[in-house]
Amino acid sequence: MADSIHSARVKKCAELMTKHDLDVLLLTKPSNMFYLTGDGRLCSYAMITSRGEVALGVPSTDIEDVAKTAAFDKIVGFEDEVGMIHSIAHYFKEFGISKGSMGIENTFLTMSMQGMLTHPHAKPEQVAAKDATHLLSQLRLVKEAAEIELMKEAARVADIGMQAAIDAVAAGVTESEVAGAAEYAMRRHGAEGFWRSYVAAGPRTNIAHGLPSNRRIESGDLVMIDIHPIVNNYSADLCRMVCAGTPSTIQQEVYDLYLQGLLAAIAKCSNGVGMVELENAMHDIYKAAGHKDHIFGPAIHGTGIDFEEAPLPPGHAFFHGEKAPDPLQTNTVIAVGNCGLYCGSWGIRIEDTVAVGTAEPVVLTNYPRELVRK
Amino acid sequence: MADSIHSARVKKCAELMTKHDLDVLLLTKPSNMFYLTGDGRLCSYAMITSRGEVALGVPSTDIEDVAKTAAFDKIVGFEDEVGMIHSIAHYFKEFGISKGSMGIENTFLTMSMQGMLTHPHAKPEQVAAKDATHLLSQLRLVKEAAEIELMKEAARVADIGMQAAIDAVAAGVTESEVAGAAEYAMRRHGAEGFWRSYVAAGPRTNIAHGLPSNRRIESGDLVMIDIHPIVNNYSADLCRMVCAGTPSTIQQEVYDLYLQGLLAAIAKCSNGVGMVELENAMHDIYKAAGHKDHIFGPAIHGTGIDFEEAPLPPGHAFFHGEKAPDPLQTNTVIAVGNCGLYCGSWGIRIEDTVAVGTAEPVVLTNYPRELVRK
Repeated sequence: MADSIHSARVKKCAELMTKHDLDVLLLTKPSNMFYLTGDGRLCSYAMITSRGEVALGVPSTDIEDVAKTAAFDKIVGFEDEVGMIHSIAHYFKEFGISKGSMGIENTFLTMSMQGMLTHPHAKPEQVAAKDATHLLSQLRLVKEAAEIELMKEAARVADIGMQAAIDAVAAGVTESEVAGAAEYAMRRHGAEGFWRSYVAAGPRTNIAHGLPSNRRIESGDLVMIDIHPIVNNYSADLCRMVCAGTPSTIQQEVYDLYLQGLLAAIAKCSNGVGMVELENAMHDIYKAAGHKDHIFGPAIHGTGIDFEEAPLPPGHAFFHGEKAPDPLQTNTVIAVGNCGLYCGSWGIRIEDTVAVGTAEPVVLTNYPRELVRK
Repeated sequence: MADSIHSARVKKCAELMTKHDLDVLLLTKPSNMFYLTGDGRLCSYAMITSRGEVALGVPSTDIEDVAKTAAFDKIVGFEDEVGMIHSIAHYFKEFGISKGSMGIENTFLTMSMQGMLTHPHAKPEQVAAKDATHLLSQLRLVKEAAEIELMKEAARVADIGMQAAIDAVAAGVTESEVAGAAEYAMRRHGAEGFWRSYVAAGPRTNIAHGLPSNRRIESGDLVMIDIHPIVNNYSADLCRMVCAGTPSTIQQEVYDLYLQGLLAAIAKCSNGVGMVELENAMHDIYKAAGHKDHIFGPAIHGTGIDFEEAPLPPGHAFFHGEKAPDPLQTNTVIAVGNCGLYCGSWGIRIEDTVAVGTAEPVVLTNYPRELVRK
């Protein structure tokens, strides 16, 4: 472990493992591997012991590439799934772990992947697998100062992507083309990738996950644009709306109401605020205005290496294998505005990425918040 | 079930369920839901009984949008995860299913999602969950004539994307920008989305999954471009290579060798061919030329609604919860060339989407196969 950032994180992880009675972690989720070792990629694993040892298994083609950036004690390449399983068994022997508890990622592993990692040829029989989702979330929850800087950069690229998307909106253009304009601009300005883009227009603004379609924007349509660049492995989450023409009075009213709720929640993003308190800051305003039945979706989620990560609101957290979050500490980064007001034939949503500050919020995404008219 | 395509598929599905002793399927994988109902989206489910009844559960915001395209007997909207679970329990009651077997998707469900779907508040205690991955793969394996036409259209869009990517390649341009050029072109020409793009240059052509990075292409670099548009819900898989300058003699030799293996495998894509036979058609040529140690990755995989689906080669299939495939029938669509020749500091890979024909292959992706020099 040559690298001080990752050795400090592994040390903290090992302490948490001891506290949670885990002897070893077997990670395959790229974001967790990246956080702890500096490299996270598909079809690889990281094994971390409660003594702070780090062993990596990667496709044999990738050893040199991983070794360039990752911090580890041992690395092995495998040719295929059988080789992967045998390499895990080998590390168990080398680390002298023949019984105890192994933490795995229940919120990431499919049933069949779990079957591989706990295969009798991989894991000693007396090692029991336990879910370690919460441990890893706890570890990554409060961002380091350098992580906040990386997220500022991701947010800057999100703002650029939003401008390109809004520039592309016009009657006759497809939702997919608008998404493409944002994605291409983000890649040209420093994003190495992006999480799923959402662009939905007209009646499709009323659906929960507005993945782009080939529907052509019609004059008068509201258009909802939600983008998530990945820049140096960190994400930002930004949603804005445009009207391809002039919004109706009620659309503008609901937009202004949504924004009022959003700004009320953002204003509360300082050390010690609760997730429910933030959610209520939005919902109370919408309910008071008669829109109780139009609220849908959890209002807030964490963001970082993954665009959606801990903290999650209590109910949502439970079903995603996470625990209900403690009051938020300074430098926890959240996306505020993930819920919408869905009015039947159209919906409204605006979302920003915000770092919880000591005394006041640090808003990372800065694209102007008014309803754009085109 | 108003729609004849989907009612025929559900009928066939119900027959397979009876054969596999399944009383009900509980599906959450969008591609499976789309195949059987005409709509597949996130955070939704489809319940299918062995009597051929179809019930959908979707976010309450999405009911009207789903009803526009999906074929179903019952639909219900839910507000959150608790509502989703209760709606599943409700359908079990309505369908009179209190014991027996429920098929779920082990290759798609995370451990925590499986926990939700089999929660005591969702599923009757005496209903046992079983993996139904193979049943669904069997169902989707041989494409209908109309599906082949849709995949031709996806392949056409892949060819357009490849041209845009190759046009973008130049010394000084990042891998990410090249990916962006392909993606934007595909969206402008009919793709509503795409699966992960791979663009890797220079030494990164040697890694197994070359996700784009911000590495700038250097003069003389090989560049590997692998793209997967989604057009009307169907995918194609296309990989080509460019040299930003003049390839070395050995690079051109290995490229030509790889292409020779690819064409040998494609030539065999007719009714009754085995996956291992196809794989050997490539591997034998590479081994005979002394490149045994440079082969990595399964040479072939199915493609369709998902860009990677059944059939998978035997070993790979096992670890992905699939069964080893029978000889391939006419109108099975596969991507040939998924393995690479990884030579240490660079690698070679070319990939095409091919429908198994009655007597000869129907190659869907048509972008020229020579190593482009720029």
